[in-house]
Amino acid sequence: MAFHSFLPKTYYRALGSFDPVLSVDDGDTIATTTVCAAGRDSTDTEITPPGNPMTGPFYVRGAKPGDTLAVHFDSVCPNRPYGWSRTALAPNVLDPEFVALTGKSAGPEFGRWLVDPDAGTARLVDPVDTAIGSFSVPIAPMVGCFGVAPPAPEAVSTATSGPHGGNMDYRRLTAGVTVYFPVTVPGALFFIGDGHARQGDGEINGTGIEISLDVQFRLSLVPGLRICWPWVDTDDRICTIGNARPLDQALQHATTEMYRRLQQSCGMDPVAASIFMGHHAIYEVGNVFDPAYTMVCSVPKVALPV
Amino acid sequence: MAFHSFLPKTYYRALGSFDPVLSVDDGDTIATTTVCAAGRDSTDTEITPPGNPMTGPFYVRGAKPGDTLAVHFDSVCPNRPYGWSRTALAPNVLDPEFVALTGKSAGPEFGRWLVDPDAGTARLVDPVDTAIGSFSVPIAPMVGCFGVAPPAPEAVSTATSGPHGGNMDYRRLTAGVTVYFPVTVPGALFFIGDGHARQGDGEINGTGIEISLDVQFRLSLVPGLRICWPWVDTDDRICTIGNARPLDQALQHATTEMYRRLQQSCGMDPVAASIFMGHHAIYEVGNVFDPAYTMVCSVPKVALPV
Amino acid sequence: MAFHSFLPKTYYRALGSFDPVLSVDDGDTIATTTVCAAGRDSTDTEITPPGNPMTGPFYVRGAKPGDTLAVHFDSVCPNRPYGWSRTALAPNVLDPEFVALTGKSAGPEFGRWLVDPDAGTARLVDPVDTAIGSFSVPIAPMVGCFGVAPPAPEAVSTATSGPHGGNMDYRRLTAGVTVYFPVTVPGALFFIGDGHARQGDGEINGTGIEISLDVQFRLSLVPGLRICWPWVDTDDRICTIGNARPLDQALQHATTEMYRRLQQSCGMDPVAASIFMGHHAIYEVGNVFDPAYTMVCSVPKVALPV
Amino acid sequence: MAFHSFLPKTYYRALGSFDPVLSVDDGDTIATTTVCAAGRDSTDTEITPPGNPMTGPFYVRGAKPGDTLAVHFDSVCPNRPYGWSRTALAPNVLDPEFVALTGKSAGPEFGRWLVDPDAGTARLVDPVDTAIGSFSVPIAPMVGCFGVAPPAPEAVSTATSGPHGGNMDYRRLTAGVTVYFPVTVPGALFFIGDGHARQGDGEINGTGIEISLDVQFRLSLVPGLRICWPWVDTDDRICTIGNARPLDQALQHATTEMYRRLQQSCGMDPVAASIFMGHHAIYEVGNVFDPAYTMVCSVPKVALPV
Repeated sequence: MAFHSFLPKTYYRALGSFDPVLSVDDGDTIATTTVCAAGRDSTDTEITPPGNPMTGPFYVRGAKPGDTLAVHFDSVCPNRPYGWSRTALAPNVLDPEFVALTGKSAGPEFGRWLVDPDAGTARLVDPVDTAIGSFSVPIAPMVGCFGVAPPAPEAVSTATSGPHGGNMDYRRLTAGVTVYFPVTVPGALFFIGDGHARQGDGEINGTGIEISLDVQFRLSLVPGLRICWPWVDTDDRICTIGNARPLDQALQHATTEMYRRLQQSCGMDPVAASIFMGHHAIYEVGNVFDPAYTMVCSVPKVALPV
Repeated sequence: MAFHSFLPKTYYRALGSFDPVLSVDDGDTIATTTVCAAGRDSTDTEITPPGNPMTGPFYVRGAKPGDTLAVHFDSVCPNRPYGWSRTALAPNVLDPEFVALTGKSAGPEFGRWLVDPDAGTARLVDPVDTAIGSFSVPIAPMVGCFGVAPPAPEAVSTATSGPHGGNMDYRRLTAGVTVYFPVTVPGALFFIGDGHARQGDGEINGTGIEISLDVQFRLSLVPGLRICWPWVDTDDRICTIGNARPLDQALQHATTEMYRRLQQSCGMDPVAASIFMGHHAIYEVGNVFDPAYTMVCSVPKVALPV
Repeated sequence: MAFHSFLPKTYYRALGSFDPVLSVDDGDTIATTTVCAAGRDSTDTEITPPGNPMTGPFYVRGAKPGDTLAVHFDSVCPNRPYGWSRTALAPNVLDPEFVALTGKSAGPEFGRWLVDPDAGTARLVDPVDTAIGSFSVPIAPMVGCFGVAPPAPEAVSTATSGPHGGNMDYRRLTAGVTVYFPVTVPGALFFIGDGHARQGDGEINGTGIEISLDVQFRLSLVPGLRICWPWVDTDDRICTIGNARPLDQALQHATTEMYRRLQQSCGMDPVAASIFMGHHAIYEVGNVFDPAYTMVCSVPKVALPV
Repeated sequence: MAFHSFLPKTYYRALGSFDPVLSVDDGDTIATTTVCAAGRDSTDTEITPPGNPMTGPFYVRGAKPGDTLAVHFDSVCPNRPYGWSRTALAPNVLDPEFVALTGKSAGPEFGRWLVDPDAGTARLVDPVDTAIGSFSVPIAPMVGCFGVAPPAPEAVSTATSGPHGGNMDYRRLTAGVTVYFPVTVPGALFFIGDGHARQGDGEINGTGIEISLDVQFRLSLVPGLRICWPWVDTDDRICTIGNARPLDQALQHATTEMYRRLQQSCGMDPVAASIFMGHHAIYEVGNVFDPAYTMVCSVPKVALPV
């Protein structure tokens, strides 16, 4: 259960079986940094080409296909005072006829934010002349894109997501949360990047407030636990994540996986799991912007049988 | 602002331009009852054929196409101690290959619940031999299907939903909430029915705990307010509802309508409304079972400009 | 097997249980006219409000729920020399980001066509200054919207379609073809309208060349044949039609119905029907513009077992 | 314009920037072989793991990002007398409720076919006891999966498809046809495999008649032609291909690309292209089984302006 402080030098814009940047043991903790989606670091300097560049991959010794990798986030903190975002609603979340009538937004394509982690706020500084005047929001830092390598020889773009995780852009994936991924290659190969200071459901501007991060997380193995889609544990809920288009299919993946999870890990039979979900399931939208959308199915821990 | 206590004698299984059962004035309050989805009343007797039979229509004097009808729920209370539900997950919310492998659930098709409004609980009494043992849930009564007549001569089945409302099966539509519908025929013609003692997100069993209700609501007009999809006001949020398949299109309708609502009613310009939604929007799934799915977009009132 | 020459005086913009305009016997033939989608007749005069006004309903004596109504088209002929169309591609058939970039088409919203049934051509006369110069197409007259009443008390808008038929906008539904609909109300109640002089797959301009028609068709019953979705017989194929959104669901309906049809009417078992369809199925897109899209599944008659 | 006879020794199950197996010049012709989807060669021996193993990649000297690679198929011939297929309809092409009721097909999972290229037929030899008796079909050999490398460092599974081509499973992609792909990496890196002796629209059994092939094709460059999705030229049509889920999005990609193609290569302005497509477009379904579905939009060459 060692602690590794890791300074990244290379970045990947796909999750795949690339050479590991660090090998760690089951249970080790890593503290590192991530650049923002545009490849800019804590000094706001572009040090690698844009497109969700990833820190990693981290090789977990002993991880093998058929295991599950648990990632517990100790901390997720913006490490610079500037964030950026897009400003228009993504055309794919609006009615097509409405988009044809209104066309491309007249406003500037990008916004710039002053992020104050101590005050816990982000203030829009450009454009400032919007009809909402000075626009400030509480920050809620999160990690947009992270996960493990898909089966070799695949290497999946950090623009999208799948059973291996990736660009899920779900706002609850942050400090205090544990996320589980199915291991499909030796070492699991964990990647992380694409921090947001804040984002609403759906990432419907096409970005959150994009920012570089200091992150600290613990990587541990659940040998022999076979999952099909990412699982999440929060303080009060257990969740399953489906990544696909359309949203209907993402919902099918998340629902099917929760149905399996309740039987696999909570001792329910199919009838019990069905009824339980019918009365306790909650759905949340991760993103509806990326090539694969993200739907989360969760149930409250308090309702689970002891 | 009269008060009407109304005892229904006829029920409709479509929302359309049928003869009104009662005419009321703008601002009047109505107390009435609804049968459950199976047409069973407070004595658990089938008094009308099943299929979401509606109480109404109620004619609001002065309502005309181009106006908006506001429905404020004062109370929504189960009026009998028995509820029923389906017990399996709807096949359309699961992965098709998974459904093919597992087939039709082995369990009983229907469950029976003992509902105790005073204790605020519903207990599953049949089947009882599930692996979760005695299964009890807090009740959260809601109205599954309500709305106004669509444009004449259409009459839309109570199985589905649309701009006029209908079978939205969204669990937050209950006492304390105000729902707004676009008026398309003289008198608006309001219908209501399909009570649930409780339902998770998505109505993924294909039912909630189906029950008959005592309901009390106030009908008032917002002359000249043109809305395209239902609006909702809760204690702490303003919402817009989209009803369509696939879920992606329901989300487009809800998102577009919130974008319009923020400009129409909250003084935002397009850029401000886009950025505001990008950082404050929350999505909730009403149902993913009915012919049209229901997606809700909301923003917190506290974040709105004063 | 009488012949009825019928001159319509009223038109409906929904398919529902309205009073019949004519009652006929099983096997009778009807010759009548339809106005175009804009309610304009053979003299190009608007005689009824626009929105796919229907001629009918025709009551077929003896038809009862559980039967099937067969409609055989003897002839489908434009009865005026003018047609109209929209000129832009519908935004919903284009990539959303592309629509946002290009916005609403700069061209005129509507086009006007000179239709010459004898020459078998339609020539675009307004706008004429397009980069394709004088634009002429062979005509291929078809009926866009027709079908039977849905279950009472529903009345479904002529903008959309369903198991009862309706606005399918499939270009092969024309003279020589037999279309089958499930009867759900006494008398079946057949409606017809929305003629097109020509239309490509998908009705992607949002219209065909809209025109009024002289039509002649025979209505006959198949007692006790229970179908779920429309069937079609052409010279060389048997087809099934699914109407829904998204296109994926329309395809599921059409495919499931063909699977049932091959077992029900062609003596195949499930394995045979599956393999047969896997190697012979052909899909065609009716419309991808209306609220419900239309997908057609067909197999060649020549491949069917004798 | 050299001719290369190439014998593959390695196979990839992803399209990516792997080491080329052969470098050729613009205009060169290659004759080679492909194993079937199960990795079995002309002797029906499994020589590489299953999962659409690809022959290639072939490096085309001079190809650079921003160019287009044209692949002209001279011949596509099964090189063994045995084919295999799945026998059930894929659950995702059927109504979910129908799948739940009927469950997994009772028949054998796989079928075996005797393929006679000289006679031009394939005969099902196992199972033989289906209700269609001896089942024989004309062969129509085609290539299921082929294309170029996606942008590095991505490597996309041969299970799916995208702008780079891949597992499109469209039955008209065969001898005599030219297919165009956007080049995104130096050398283009062309891959080919997954032959079918025959397949209906949609690949709705989840396979065609899977077989190994002798293929001969010419690779040539169109420098500076920027396309977004694959283009196809057949004897009588020009086509564009969209690959995505849902089918609606695949159709949007194909339609948008045809709209661009007609403006880019056929001298039409937006209005002309819109009207032309509205009256001439034909849609065909490639596959509706793979992770990304394939929709083809085509127009007849004879209708194009000279």
